[in-house]
Amino acid sequence: MNYDIKDINLAPGGKRRIEWANNDMPVLSQIRARFEKEKPLKGMKMSACLHVTAETANLVRTLQAGGADIVLCASNPLSTQDDVSASLVKDYGISVFAIKGEDNKTYYKHITSALDHKPTVTMDDGADLVSAIHKERKDLIPQLCGSMEETTTGVIRLKAMEKDGSLKIPVIAVNNADTKHLFDNRYGTGQSTIDGIIRATSLLLAGRTVVVAGYGWCGKGFAMRAKGMGAHVVVTEINPIRSLEAAMDGFMVMPMLEAARVGDVFCTLTGNLHVIRKEHFEIMKNGAIVCNSGHFNVELDIGALEALSTSVNKDVRNGVDQYMLRNNKSIYLLGEGRLINLAAAEGHPACVMDMSFATQALATEYAVKNKGKLVPKVYDVPKEIDQWVANLKLKSMGISIDTLTKEQEKYLASWEEGT
Amino acid sequence: MNYDIKDINLAPGGKRRIEWANNDMPVLSQIRARFEKEKPLKGMKMSACLHVTAETANLVRTLQAGGADIVLCASNPLSTQDDVSASLVKDYGISVFAIKGEDNKTYYKHITSALDHKPTVTMDDGADLVSAIHKERKDLIPQLCGSMEETTTGVIRLKAMEKDGSLKIPVIAVNNADTKHLFDNRYGTGQSTIDGIIRATSLLLAGRTVVVAGYGWCGKGFAMRAKGMGAHVVVTEINPIRSLEAAMDGFMVMPMLEAARVGDVFCTLTGNLHVIRKEHFEIMKNGAIVCNSGHFNVELDIGALEALSTSVNKDVRNGVDQYMLRNNKSIYLLGEGRLINLAAAEGHPACVMDMSFATQALATEYAVKNKGKLVPKVYDVPKEIDQWVANLKLKSMGISIDTLTKEQEKYLASWEEGT
Amino acid sequence: MNYDIKDINLAPGGKRRIEWANNDMPVLSQIRARFEKEKPLKGMKMSACLHVTAETANLVRTLQAGGADIVLCASNPLSTQDDVSASLVKDYGISVFAIKGEDNKTYYKHITSALDHKPTVTMDDGADLVSAIHKERKDLIPQLCGSMEETTTGVIRLKAMEKDGSLKIPVIAVNNADTKHLFDNRYGTGQSTIDGIIRATSLLLAGRTVVVAGYGWCGKGFAMRAKGMGAHVVVTEINPIRSLEAAMDGFMVMPMLEAARVGDVFCTLTGNLHVIRKEHFEIMKNGAIVCNSGHFNVELDIGALEALSTSVNKDVRNGVDQYMLRNNKSIYLLGEGRLINLAAAEGHPACVMDMSFATQALATEYAVKNKGKLVPKVYDVPKEIDQWVANLKLKSMGISIDTLTKEQEKYLASWEEGT
Amino acid sequence: MNYDIKDINLAPGGKRRIEWANNDMPVLSQIRARFEKEKPLKGMKMSACLHVTAETANLVRTLQAGGADIVLCASNPLSTQDDVSASLVKDYGISVFAIKGEDNKTYYKHITSALDHKPTVTMDDGADLVSAIHKERKDLIPQLCGSMEETTTGVIRLKAMEKDGSLKIPVIAVNNADTKHLFDNRYGTGQSTIDGIIRATSLLLAGRTVVVAGYGWCGKGFAMRAKGMGAHVVVTEINPIRSLEAAMDGFMVMPMLEAARVGDVFCTLTGNLHVIRKEHFEIMKNGAIVCNSGHFNVELDIGALEALSTSVNKDVRNGVDQYMLRNNKSIYLLGEGRLINLAAAEGHPACVMDMSFATQALATEYAVKNKGKLVPKVYDVPKEIDQWVANLKLKSMGISIDTLTKEQEKYLASWEEGT
Repeated sequence: MNYDIKDINLAPGGKRRIEWANNDMPVLSQIRARFEKEKPLKGMKMSACLHVTAETANLVRTLQAGGADIVLCASNPLSTQDDVSASLVKDYGISVFAIKGEDNKTYYKHITSALDHKPTVTMDDGADLVSAIHKERKDLIPQLCGSMEETTTGVIRLKAMEKDGSLKIPVIAVNNADTKHLFDNRYGTGQSTIDGIIRATSLLLAGRTVVVAGYGWCGKGFAMRAKGMGAHVVVTEINPIRSLEAAMDGFMVMPMLEAARVGDVFCTLTGNLHVIRKEHFEIMKNGAIVCNSGHFNVELDIGALEALSTSVNKDVRNGVDQYMLRNNKSIYLLGEGRLINLAAAEGHPACVMDMSFATQALATEYAVKNKGKLVPKVYDVPKEIDQWVANLKLKSMGISIDTLTKEQEKYLASWEEGT
Repeated sequence: MNYDIKDINLAPGGKRRIEWANNDMPVLSQIRARFEKEKPLKGMKMSACLHVTAETANLVRTLQAGGADIVLCASNPLSTQDDVSASLVKDYGISVFAIKGEDNKTYYKHITSALDHKPTVTMDDGADLVSAIHKERKDLIPQLCGSMEETTTGVIRLKAMEKDGSLKIPVIAVNNADTKHLFDNRYGTGQSTIDGIIRATSLLLAGRTVVVAGYGWCGKGFAMRAKGMGAHVVVTEINPIRSLEAAMDGFMVMPMLEAARVGDVFCTLTGNLHVIRKEHFEIMKNGAIVCNSGHFNVELDIGALEALSTSVNKDVRNGVDQYMLRNNKSIYLLGEGRLINLAAAEGHPACVMDMSFATQALATEYAVKNKGKLVPKVYDVPKEIDQWVANLKLKSMGISIDTLTKEQEKYLASWEEGT
Repeated sequence: MNYDIKDINLAPGGKRRIEWANNDMPVLSQIRARFEKEKPLKGMKMSACLHVTAETANLVRTLQAGGADIVLCASNPLSTQDDVSASLVKDYGISVFAIKGEDNKTYYKHITSALDHKPTVTMDDGADLVSAIHKERKDLIPQLCGSMEETTTGVIRLKAMEKDGSLKIPVIAVNNADTKHLFDNRYGTGQSTIDGIIRATSLLLAGRTVVVAGYGWCGKGFAMRAKGMGAHVVVTEINPIRSLEAAMDGFMVMPMLEAARVGDVFCTLTGNLHVIRKEHFEIMKNGAIVCNSGHFNVELDIGALEALSTSVNKDVRNGVDQYMLRNNKSIYLLGEGRLINLAAAEGHPACVMDMSFATQALATEYAVKNKGKLVPKVYDVPKEIDQWVANLKLKSMGISIDTLTKEQEKYLASWEEGT
Repeated sequence: MNYDIKDINLAPGGKRRIEWANNDMPVLSQIRARFEKEKPLKGMKMSACLHVTAETANLVRTLQAGGADIVLCASNPLSTQDDVSASLVKDYGISVFAIKGEDNKTYYKHITSALDHKPTVTMDDGADLVSAIHKERKDLIPQLCGSMEETTTGVIRLKAMEKDGSLKIPVIAVNNADTKHLFDNRYGTGQSTIDGIIRATSLLLAGRTVVVAGYGWCGKGFAMRAKGMGAHVVVTEINPIRSLEAAMDGFMVMPMLEAARVGDVFCTLTGNLHVIRKEHFEIMKNGAIVCNSGHFNVELDIGALEALSTSVNKDVRNGVDQYMLRNNKSIYLLGEGRLINLAAAEGHPACVMDMSFATQALATEYAVKNKGKLVPKVYDVPKEIDQWVANLKLKSMGISIDTLTKEQEKYLASWEEGT
C-alpha cells in the first residue's frame, strides 16, 4: 500500500478519536451498515480531497464499506490530524497522502498521488481535484461518473466552469443540501465559536458586550449562542434585511465604527475582507479581544493592527497575542486571526458533520447509480436524499414526526391549484 | 361620492385609530410625504381589495397622496373595521365599499362597485379583483398597468393563471418580497398569537406546555415567543428538516398523537387541514385549550370535536367555548377556531404592516413608471425596492449599518469568480 | 342579608368569570374540597378586606366552605369587579360591601360594615382592617384569633406596630411565604405587564428598546419577558448588586439619564417615587411610551410631565394620553401612570393567585387551630404550609419530583454537622 | 525563604497565567493599588489555605501589597497549579507549601508549615486552618485578629463550633456576601460546566436532552446556559418551591427515574450524595453521558455503576471512561465523577473570582482595623463591603447606575414607616 503520512505509530490515538466521533455519527453509521451489505460502490475507484479529520475518516470508512477502493489527500495543509491519518492507514487499510504542516510542493504532490489512483469518482472540498483533472489529467475525464463538492467556494468555482463551458464532468453540489448548510453554520459554528473563544481566553461571557460582525447563518448561530451565555450582543451588518432581522431578534445593530467603542469581544463571520480594520482598532477599549470565525484569516486586517502597534507579546496565553498600541491600549488577537473554532477548539462537532457526510455518501451512490445519465453540469442533491438524511437523523435522535393524511395531501394539492 | 359602509358617524373613532397606526408606520409615512410632492400616480384610477383596517387606511392615504383616484372594497367579509371605513369616507374622501359581516351577495356587489371605478391599477389580497376582471370585466384589461398581490394564496393562483396562459395583465408579487414574508409571519404572527391567547384566556403561559403545530415562519415565530413567555414548547411537524431545526432550537419534537397527551395549550400554524382531529381531541388532558393561528378556520377539525361532545357551553369567557366530551373531560376552543390573533387581538401590529404596505406603494409606483414595458406575467418585487424599504425602516428605528468599502466590493466580486 | 354593591343583575357575568378563574386555581379548589368535609373554620366569623376580583371570590368561597361566616369589603376603591360582587351576593350568599369607583367616605363606611360583622379572624391587603380595629374597634381584639396579611406594605406597617408595642393581635405575614412572593412578582407581573402594554398600544415589542426601571423580582420578571418578546432591554437600578445581576443576565445597565435618550418604551417597577421625572422626559425620543407597573401611580412624575407640556390629547387610543411637549416632541402615557397590568389588562393570572390564596386559606386554618397559642406578633407562614402549597401546585400541573433517600437524609444531616 | 513546591523552573508559565487572570480581576487590582499606598495590613503575619490557582495568586499578591507577610498552603491536594506555585515563590517571594497530587501526610505537613508562620490573620477554604488551630495550635489563638472563610461547608462547620461554644476567634463568613454567592454559582458554574462538558466530549448540545439535577444557584446557572446552547433541559429536584421555579422558567421537571430514560447528558449540582444511582443507570439510553458539577465526587454512585458493568474502557477520549453495562448498553462517565468544570476546564473564570477575592481582601482589612473589637463568633461581611465591591465591579465594566434623589430617600424612609 502506498501512503505518505507523518508517523504510523500515532495510529492508536487516531483510532480512539475516529471511534469517538463515530458515536455521534449515527446516520453515517447506518449508511455504512447498508453499504456493507449492498456494496453500491463496488468496482469504483475513488479519490477524495478533504480535511483529514476523525469525522472524514468515518466518511472514508463508509465509502470503503460500500465497495469503493479509495485514497485520501488533504484539502488544506494545516487541518490534518496526523494520528487519524496513521489509523486510516494502519487500522483501515486506506492510502492517505497528508501531513500536517506540509509545504505547498508536498501538498500538490499529494494531490497528484491521489489522482494517480485513477479515480472513477472524486470528492472535493474546494474543487482542487476537479481543477487538477481539468488542467493536467484530462485523461481521467472519460471514466469519471462524477464529483461531489462540499463547500460554497467550490460550488462557486464549478458553476463558473459550467457557465463558460469548461466543465466536463457531472458534479453534485453537496454543500447546497438543506441538511448541510442549514445546520453546520448555525448550530456547528454557533457552538464551536463559543467553545474556541472560551478555551482561548477562559473569559466569562456573561455581562460582556460581544460584537458579531455578520448576521448570515454563521453570525445568527453565534449571536444566538453568545446571548445564551449571557452576553450583551451587538450585530454589525451591511445587508439591511439581515439588519432588521437582527434588531427584531433583540440585538443592538450599529456600524462597526460605533460597535468598536463598546465591544469587549469581537468576532467576524462575514466571508468578507478586512471587516475590522485600522479605524476600528484605533478606538477599541483597552484589552479588547478580537477573533474571526468566518473566512480564512482575511476578515481582520492584521497588517493594520501590526502597523498600529509598537510591539506584540506573543502567546500571553496559548493562542493569544497581545498587541501593544501606540495609544497605550492593548488588543488581544486570538488564533492569529484564523478560524477560532479550529484554532482553539475542534471545529464542527461530529453530530453536525454526520449530516454533511451522510449526504456525501448518498450523493456518491446516486452518481454511481446514474452513471452515464448525468451530463457535465452542477447538480443539486436530489430532494429525496435531503429528506432521507433528515429522517435518519431524527430517528437517531429518537424523534418521530407526523405524516400527511390522505385528506391533507389532497387538500394541499388542491390548495396549490388555488381553489 | 359613491360608497357603501355601515355608519358614517363612526368616523371619529376610526380617525383616531388610523392616526395611531400611522405613528408606527414611518416608512409608509415617508413615502406618502414624497408622493405628495412628486405625484407619481397622477392620473391613475385604482381599485384596491384589501382587509379594511387602520393600517390599510394608511396605505390608501399614501396612494391618494401620490395622485391616485382610489376606491376600496373588502377582501374578507369579516375583517372590516367599520369605524375605519367611515373615517376613510368622511375624513379622507375615499370611496369605500365594505361592511363588517356583509353577506356573500353584498361582498361580490362591492367588488363589482370597485371595478365600476374603471381602474388602471389594481391591488389584491387573494386575487379577487384580478379573477373578476379576467372572468367578467375583460374590457378593463387593455388599460391596466398591472396589479399588486399581497398574499401567498393569491400568488399561487396567479402563477397558475400564468402557467396555463390565461393571465393577461402584469402582476407584482408583493408577498414574495423579503421585507414582507420574513417579518410579518415571524414577528407579527409570533407576538399577536401570544396576545390573542392571553386576551382570550388570561392564562399564565409560564410553566404551561404549549404545543405548536408547524415550524414554518409563523410556527417559528410563535414557538420563539411562547418560549420567551416561559412556556415549555413542543413542536409537531411533517417536514423532517424543519423538525431538526426545531429540535436544535431546543424544542421537544413529537407527533401530534403524543403531543396531544401532554399539551396544555395547542395552536396550529401549518396552512393545512385538520391538523388536530378526532384521535387527538380524544386523548387530550381535561381542560386543554385549542386554537388556530394558521389558515382560515380549517386547521382544527371542529366537526370532529362536536361529534365527540355531549354539549357545548358557549362563551364561558368571551370567545371561549367549552366542549363537554363523552369521556368526561372538557376542551376549550378559542375564537371558534378562526385566526386567534384577529379573533381575540388586533392582528399584525402596524410596525410590521408598515413594511408590507410600503412595498405595496413602491411596487405600484414601479408598475406605473414601467407602464407598457411589463408583460403579462408574475413579477417579483425589484430587489432595490426591498432594500430601500428595509433601509428606510432601519432609519426610522434610528439604526445605521455598515457599507462595503471599495476593497471589500472588489474582494467579493473576485471571490465570486473563484480566485 | 346585608350588602352594598353596584347592581345585583350583573351576577351572571360575575359567576362565569369566577368559574373561569377557578379552573386555574386547582390548589385552592383542593383545599375547598377538604374544607367542605372537615369544616376547620366552623364557628368563625371572618371579615376580609381584599381586591374584589374573581380570584378573591374563589378564596372567599373556600373560607365559606370551611365553615366561616364571611363578609367582604374592598381594599382599593378602583379594583372592584362589580359583576363578581353581584355573583358573590346572589349565587354564593356572601355579604359584600364594595362598589367600583366608590368615594373615600363610602370606602371607609364599607370597612366599618365589615367590622360590624364582629369577626374572630380578619384578612387584609394593606392592614386596613387591623388599623381600624386598633384605632376604633378595640372591643373586637379579645375575640380575634389573628389576621392574615397579603402585601409587603401591610407587613411593613404591622412590623412597625409590633416594634413599638402597639400590635395587640397575632398576624400571619402571608406575603412572606415563598409560594407568594417568589411567584406573583416574577411570573405574574412579568406576563401581565407585557399584556397591559400590548393591549394598550398594539405595539410590536420585537426590535424596540424597552427600559426597565428596577431589577427586583418584578423588574426581573418583566425584563425576562420583554427579552422573550424580542425587545432590546435596558435596565436602570440604584442597587449595585442587582445591577451586576442585570448585566450578567445579558441586559444593558445605565442610569435613567442615558436610558431616557435610547428607550422606545419605559416601565417602572421599583416601589419608589418619581423614578422618571422632568430631566428624563425632556430628553426622550419623540413618541416615547411611558408606563408604570410598580407602586400606585407615584413612580412617574406626572406633574412634571404636565408642566413640560403645552397640551394633552386624552385617549388617542383607549388608555393612552399624548402629552405635547414644548420641545415639539410628544410622549405617550399609558393608564394615567397607574399599574398598567390592572389598568389595561387583568392583573395577575389566576394560576399565580392560586398559590397566594391557598396560602391565605391554610394560614387562616393554622391561626384558628392555634387559637390561644399565638401571641401578638407578626408570624411567618409555617414552612410546612409553603411546602404543602408548592407540592399541591406541582401535582395540579402533573409534575412529580424526587424525595430524599434515607442515605441522603443521613448524609445531609451529617454534612450539616461538618463531617 | 521556606517553601515546598513541585519545580521552581515552572515559574515563567505560572507568571503568564497569573498576569492573564489579573487582566480580568480589576476590582482586586484596584484594591491592590490602594493597599500598596496605605499598607493596611502592615505588620500582619498571614497564613492562607486556598486552592493554589492563578486567581488565588492575585489575591495573595494583594495581601502582600497591603503589607502582610503571607504564606500559602493548599486547601485541596489536587487543585494546585504547580507553575503558579513556582511563580509565587520565584517572582513574588511568597512561601508556598503545595504540590499537586500530594499525599495526605504531605497535605497536613503543609498545613503545619503554614501555621509555623505564626499568623495573626488566617484565611480558609473549608476551615482547615481554624480546625488545626483549635485542635493543635491553641497557642496561636491569643494573637489572632480573625479568620476569613470562603466556602459554605466551612461556614457550616464554624457555626457549629460557635454554637457549642468551642469557637475561640472571630471569623468572617466571606462566602455569605452577595457579591460571592450570587455570582460564582450562577454565572461561574453555569459557564464553566458547559465548558467542561464540551471540552471533554466535543458534543453538540443543540438538540440534546440535558438533565440537570438540582435547581439551586448552581443548577439554575447551568440550566440557563444549557438552554442558551440549544439543549432541551430537564430539571430534577427534591424541593417543591425550586421545582415550581424550574417549571415556570420553562423547563420540564420530573423525577430522576423518568429523566434517566430521556436524558442524553446528565449533570448533578445538588450538594448531596448518590443523586444518580443504580436504578437510574440501569434505565439510561445507550451512550448516555454522566457528570457532576456539584459536591466532590459523591453525587454519582460510581460504585453502583461499576457493579452494573462488565468492563470499563478507560479514556476512550481524554477524561471519558466508557462503562460497558450488563444490559449491553454503555454509559460514559466524565472526569471520574469529579467536578467537571475543574476536571475538564479551568474552574470559575477570573472575572467571577475577582469579586470573591476582593471581598476576601476587604474583609481582612476590616478584621485588622477592628482588631480587639470583634468577639469569637461568625460575622457576616459588612454590607458596605458588599456594596463597595459591587460598585467597583460595575465601574470596571464601564457601567454607571442611578442614585436616590433626596426626595426618594425621604419617600422610602417614610414608606417604611407605613405612611
